[in-house]
Amino acid sequence: MLPPNSAYAIGLDYGTNSARALVVDCADGRELACAVFNYPSGEQGVILDAADHLLARQHPADYLAALETAVREALAGAAAAEPLFAPEKVAGIGVDATGSSPLPVDAQNRPLALDPRFAGDPAALCWLWKDHTAIPEAAAITDAARRLRPQFLAKIGGVYSAEWFWAKIWHALKTAPAVFDAAHSWVELTDFIPAVLTGADAPEKIIRGVCTAGHKALYADEWGGLPDKEFLAALDPRLAALRDRLYERAHDVSRAAGGLCAEWARRLGLREGIAVAVGEMDVHYGAIGCGVGEGALVKVVGTSTCDCAVVRADKTVADIPGICGIVRGSILPGYYGVEAGQSAVGDIFKWFVEKVGASGALGNSAEMHKNLTAAAAHLRPGQSGLLALDWNNGNRTILVNQRLTGLLLGQTLQTTPAEIYRALIEATAFGARAIIERLREYGVPVERVVCTGGIATKNPLLMQIYADVTGCEMRVSRSTQSCALGAAIGATVAAGIHGGSFAAAQNAMTGLLPLSYKPDPAAGAVYDKLYALYRVLHDAFGGVAGGTGTAGNIAAVMPTLLDIKSASAK
Amino acid sequence: MLPPNSAYAIGLDYGTNSARALVVDCADGRELACAVFNYPSGEQGVILDAADHLLARQHPADYLAALETAVREALAGAAAAEPLFAPEKVAGIGVDATGSSPLPVDAQNRPLALDPRFAGDPAALCWLWKDHTAIPEAAAITDAARRLRPQFLAKIGGVYSAEWFWAKIWHALKTAPAVFDAAHSWVELTDFIPAVLTGADAPEKIIRGVCTAGHKALYADEWGGLPDKEFLAALDPRLAALRDRLYERAHDVSRAAGGLCAEWARRLGLREGIAVAVGEMDVHYGAIGCGVGEGALVKVVGTSTCDCAVVRADKTVADIPGICGIVRGSILPGYYGVEAGQSAVGDIFKWFVEKVGASGALGNSAEMHKNLTAAAAHLRPGQSGLLALDWNNGNRTILVNQRLTGLLLGQTLQTTPAEIYRALIEATAFGARAIIERLREYGVPVERVVCTGGIATKNPLLMQIYADVTGCEMRVSRSTQSCALGAAIGATVAAGIHGGSFAAAQNAMTGLLPLSYKPDPAAGAVYDKLYALYRVLHDAFGGVAGGTGTAGNIAAVMPTLLDIKSASAK
Repeated sequence: MLPPNSAYAIGLDYGTNSARALVVDCADGRELACAVFNYPSGEQGVILDAADHLLARQHPADYLAALETAVREALAGAAAAEPLFAPEKVAGIGVDATGSSPLPVDAQNRPLALDPRFAGDPAALCWLWKDHTAIPEAAAITDAARRLRPQFLAKIGGVYSAEWFWAKIWHALKTAPAVFDAAHSWVELTDFIPAVLTGADAPEKIIRGVCTAGHKALYADEWGGLPDKEFLAALDPRLAALRDRLYERAHDVSRAAGGLCAEWARRLGLREGIAVAVGEMDVHYGAIGCGVGEGALVKVVGTSTCDCAVVRADKTVADIPGICGIVRGSILPGYYGVEAGQSAVGDIFKWFVEKVGASGALGNSAEMHKNLTAAAAHLRPGQSGLLALDWNNGNRTILVNQRLTGLLLGQTLQTTPAEIYRALIEATAFGARAIIERLREYGVPVERVVCTGGIATKNPLLMQIYADVTGCEMRVSRSTQSCALGAAIGATVAAGIHGGSFAAAQNAMTGLLPLSYKPDPAAGAVYDKLYALYRVLHDAFGGVAGGTGTAGNIAAVMPTLLDIKSASAK
Repeated sequence: MLPPNSAYAIGLDYGTNSARALVVDCADGRELACAVFNYPSGEQGVILDAADHLLARQHPADYLAALETAVREALAGAAAAEPLFAPEKVAGIGVDATGSSPLPVDAQNRPLALDPRFAGDPAALCWLWKDHTAIPEAAAITDAARRLRPQFLAKIGGVYSAEWFWAKIWHALKTAPAVFDAAHSWVELTDFIPAVLTGADAPEKIIRGVCTAGHKALYADEWGGLPDKEFLAALDPRLAALRDRLYERAHDVSRAAGGLCAEWARRLGLREGIAVAVGEMDVHYGAIGCGVGEGALVKVVGTSTCDCAVVRADKTVADIPGICGIVRGSILPGYYGVEAGQSAVGDIFKWFVEKVGASGALGNSAEMHKNLTAAAAHLRPGQSGLLALDWNNGNRTILVNQRLTGLLLGQTLQTTPAEIYRALIEATAFGARAIIERLREYGVPVERVVCTGGIATKNPLLMQIYADVTGCEMRVSRSTQSCALGAAIGATVAAGIHGGSFAAAQNAMTGLLPLSYKPDPAAGAVYDKLYALYRVLHDAFGGVAGGTGTAGNIAAVMPTLLDIKSASAK
């Protein structure tokens, strides 16, 4: 057993609006200090284009500023909080980030966005996960794969997403050829930060993680890594040429990305050469930080939601339609990682409060969320007569279709903002249920749900609705920084602590809050009816062949909602 | 030719939130003065029930207070505005009101709501047109008529509405038997006010108008007036018994309801015995006030919208599915009156601004409407990617179904309140187009559209959108009080002025504003595409057999909207 205060790890979490650094005791996961750095660029860190709602980028300069500022601040905080802490005791750094968020770099692994030639060019920025500009390219990749490499599609749930690596790069090639030509390589943010920390001064030296490479870059051992050049050439010969400047092999987190380089050791005030773990996507390290294991579904509930599960690698796991991918080692070494997600969750509530307004409620948006949640909590399931689709940002799982939009139905002249707010929460819960049902249908066990992320800890109403809608007990990770904690666990294991075992490290360093949201059978019975109607809309508007979205079922939606509303009033 | 200032008429208009009295010069329709009385009861005059969004009632005391206050105030205003005016020159009074808005009265024609025994009982109030509590009874009447008297349904567009006379009375019978038993008779508000003015001290003495009796009370000459007792007994024997205490014959406006009684002559300061015209529903007198004639569709655009057209009575007019009714004399003597309508128009915008809120816009709701309209005016057709159904209060024409609700589709995380506001306006325009298409399909000529009502004069954006969506030139009645003007024309004709001819009186007393909203072909082309998508949703959710609401068409709605949005951005 490792005694407390003998070794520490730093977890770095690069989110959508901010980055944070967490200092953790490797013995028990105790969090000594956390520092948050809000990205200064764009709108809350995201560079948008009013003329194109599909565009979402970030500036790499924000990442580098965050790295130095947040780590230094967290170290100072740790020293203040714990007399036994010392920077010399930091044994490793782990990094998680959003993904697929690729950025173009030059031959020295410098972001093109920092090159004055490309100042102000959005194509030179990091293409944030939720950038959907590459919809045509994604469709063309799906189409090409269907004809030429059906095995690719089987691995990724049947549809290549506009949020992913190749679609974004191809879109850059077509719409910003100067950037594409100047890019020596493209690096996922999950790999870029470890590369910076380990001093990789050429893209070829970067240790790439299989987590982000997995389905997002169509990387798989079965076909020798990245897609073959013949396939890429069928898209565009220049993509085939780029393959040589990417990577041959991607790695799971059983190995380190390297040692902390001298320059960044100096800039951060840490020992040179300490372990830098291979990067993973936020939710994957988050799953580790929540204690993911077989039978547990980890949900990171935030602006969007990512769902993660693992299945032992000695089992046979079928490809699952609509589930983005099952990648060996993408979460834990020795397990298949299964990933699903909802394109917008908190973002939908935020949109409703900040963009649509909230009935003249005074105060800031945090207060509006609080007031609307309080009012929504007084409503019974089905009482509003409303039903919504959670597709304001498309549908990632199980439809894998960005060309879907939001829907709200059932409005009367008396419909209130609190009713709409609750209907939007319920819509995201129905989306979550669709994912769980699909996983179980294909043999991925979901026995318990562990949530993390701001909404999971701040909104008990949402958690209870999720329990009632899904029929699953909802638990919450003890850490409010599960992603950063997971990254710190990655660093701990990379440093050889806990015998280099993730199971041992998770056992020592993670835990759940004592509170539990148990499904209420009465609410569940109403939600079963509402979910059936949700599926009618979902299947009809989502174009699910053989689904419940028939014309007759659609005509029944509004009157059935009114029946449920009447019954709820009794 | 009648010289100006030789005779005046008063038009009384009982609306949803207020009543107004208009003093008009019978020579040229010049409006000398208008006085508005806001009903003091309930929420802006409408008594609601938070537990039942279907309930909407009004207090008869408000009507009587309005009568005395508004007329006296208007007379004073006329005297102040025109030295040649004198109350003795008032030749007649006409009354329009909402309908079907029946109220229970005792044997002396006193409203039960004024009886202390029924104080606070919502069943004793006037059942406002938009009260939808009688949905089950309306369905049962439709059902019974389908089996027993299919000719009834053919006259009313195929479905008996919960907004109408018999459904409301039957609902009162079932849910408030004490009120039903105490009611000697039930009187439409359109008939009640003339009855008060003419001193009818028993329901049997009331001259009832065919306008409201028409399809709403299933009155038709073909079957001898009201439905036969055998049919009513099949619903409930007590309804059959009530028939004896209603009326045998209903009249068009070619005759007067009677002369002004002594008491009300004194209370209003007018000559006893002057003509009181037969009452009509607001929109029907409004059509007269807008100069309705064959080929003109008059739209009264307000909280809801009513559409009126006339066809010469010597022509054969087929029954039109989904059009509430074609009643001889319901608008002009010698013409079939054709009535259609949308259950909510202004009410939807008001709901969005006042209940849902408007993005933190400061200021009162009038300012919010103004700001949202200004912002919406900067959007191009199709630019928002949004599509809505205008069914927050059900669908009157052409689906005749109150068990429908609102729908908004196409939301992204960037969707703004102005975009939603415009989509709601467009939705009501699409609803208007569905009505025009149905009328034309069945041979009712629609060559020009004349609008009146608050929104028609106050919202040029809405008028232009209506022109672009319907492809019809939109004109606006010169009078901002077309309904009250029409009632005054009815009074003028009832007094024998203009030779007792409506055509002559309309020619002299009505006119159009010089402004015209002409369809823009480019906008119309986009709206043709959006309307096709609207019809897909309309037909699917409205359950239109053989319509365009197929599963395949529904799946195409969201991506097609995104295509239209992309095209609009160019």
